[in-house]
Amino acid sequence: MDDFWLDQEQLKPRLARVHDIMLDVVRSNAFPLADAVESLVQANGKMLRPAFLLIASDFGKKKQGIDELAAAIELLHVATLIHDDVIDQADTRRGITTLHARFGVKEAVLAGDWLLTRCFRLASEHSSPANARLIAQLLGSICSEEIHQDMETYLWPASVRNYLRKISGKTAALFGMALRVGASESKAMSAVVSTLTRVGYNVGMAFQITDDILDFRASEGDMRKPVGKDLREGLCTLPLILALASNAAALKPLLGDGPMGEANVANVLTLVRDCGALEHAKTFASAYTKRAILELDRLPDVRAKHELRHLCDKLLGRSW
Amino acid sequence: MDDFWLDQEQLKPRLARVHDIMLDVVRSNAFPLADAVESLVQANGKMLRPAFLLIASDFGKKKQGIDELAAAIELLHVATLIHDDVIDQADTRRGITTLHARFGVKEAVLAGDWLLTRCFRLASEHSSPANARLIAQLLGSICSEEIHQDMETYLWPASVRNYLRKISGKTAALFGMALRVGASESKAMSAVVSTLTRVGYNVGMAFQITDDILDFRASEGDMRKPVGKDLREGLCTLPLILALASNAAALKPLLGDGPMGEANVANVLTLVRDCGALEHAKTFASAYTKRAILELDRLPDVRAKHELRHLCDKLLGRSW
Repeated sequence: MDDFWLDQEQLKPRLARVHDIMLDVVRSNAFPLADAVESLVQANGKMLRPAFLLIASDFGKKKQGIDELAAAIELLHVATLIHDDVIDQADTRRGITTLHARFGVKEAVLAGDWLLTRCFRLASEHSSPANARLIAQLLGSICSEEIHQDMETYLWPASVRNYLRKISGKTAALFGMALRVGASESKAMSAVVSTLTRVGYNVGMAFQITDDILDFRASEGDMRKPVGKDLREGLCTLPLILALASNAAALKPLLGDGPMGEANVANVLTLVRDCGALEHAKTFASAYTKRAILELDRLPDVRAKHELRHLCDKLLGRSW
Repeated sequence: MDDFWLDQEQLKPRLARVHDIMLDVVRSNAFPLADAVESLVQANGKMLRPAFLLIASDFGKKKQGIDELAAAIELLHVATLIHDDVIDQADTRRGITTLHARFGVKEAVLAGDWLLTRCFRLASEHSSPANARLIAQLLGSICSEEIHQDMETYLWPASVRNYLRKISGKTAALFGMALRVGASESKAMSAVVSTLTRVGYNVGMAFQITDDILDFRASEGDMRKPVGKDLREGLCTLPLILALASNAAALKPLLGDGPMGEANVANVLTLVRDCGALEHAKTFASAYTKRAILELDRLPDVRAKHELRHLCDKLLGRSW
């Protein structure tokens, strides 16, 4: 865990417990690559998903099994990172040599599969069948979306509706699910469960749009992803879609049906920045942020509400 | 499905229903690679695991959801085949171009993951949490065993105990699980559930040992795997372990720490065949077969018992 949680005193020790459960799971069953997976878990990032789940569980009373479910959701995330590294043939992740680079494709595919099974075991032990199904369903729709997205690379499909549908099936659904599972497992009132799900959905939409804007804007020192990464991979995100609508004549000739040269990447970045598309995209993020706040305001006035508000402010602060 | 089930009139139409459920699942949710996964399901083999599950369910009364669980177990198998093809970089499987060869690593990894999630969704919808956990746990231990096995290739670790532990965590546990889940979900008596689990375990052990013997013996026309496949992949199975115990001096120099030449493969095959190791290995298979029959005889005298006996005879007939 990094310093992101320093100012959230309630959450920090709870996330540390979730982290310990994750390590226990990885160390169990004499799994042959335990050490390697453990380093990955240790180097893991913000633990946003488990944080959402824990906060949501404070809207209910039942606490048993909540930490284990939070661990399950984060292990699912680690499993997808391991498979992503196989797909991208990545050598390092967060400064750690990837499993794929250390042990090869076979071990990395199997280690990801193993972690998925551990996640589903935890889910079937510590959640209702309905929530276990929800977790499986969500991972399924993320895989499906990823395949869709990969099949559309370098096609530059310029539809805002299509883009919003895609991100709603990934980040937004994931944030919504984390809040939903936490609230419903702790037996929160059903109106609260629904409201929290909508908060998560809207925060996720705003978060993803902001992330996609940053890919056009940030100087490389600011974030881990280099600028223009999406462009280089042939992904058509909101800023480019909006720029294409206002300035297709200049942009279209630069977008080919395969990886583009660095000069073209730089030209596209400049054109998108200069036509006001980033500001336009930001209005979408702001709209989702506003909806998230509106939903948040409807929640009962308990400590968790303020904790959630604080977390959303921090997450979306960039575009607030 | 192939002709394997022609003489089992009760089972054949039920397996056809399971097959239809599998196709429905694959066609659902606008999954982008539905066609490709469907051809894989269509070309799928014997459907042994769902057959065991269905037969076991006849020892109980509850029938609801049994076909769906049988489909889940077979989809899990298809998912692991897709990932195996990524690992082996295989171009075809059962005469069908693999997903990996048609669409690349990314789509194949994600399609396998997607099928795993569909399997866990079905399990959480149609089985008790305990059985959902059992299914996840079993797949986990198979992944773990595969990694162990891969890390030991070309080390020729000659321990019978180690070999038996390995196959008990794969084929035997899988067969046992299929029978256990079918019986317990249909609310069979707990003594019957335990007995069926032991039948599955022993049949699985005998089946895997027989398969490993065939890799040293069959002429290439007899079966789909070419002879000596395990040897070429650096896997040390029971016949070689037994041969090493009786004739290490001649065999050891032929076994290197990497892929061996075809002349060495042929020499090892001949040495293993000539020292009586295949017959010795067969005594192990026979012992497990006998234990399976002993357990089978304890089952209540219903039609399913005779169906199961008939299936075991067919499966193990080669070594009976």
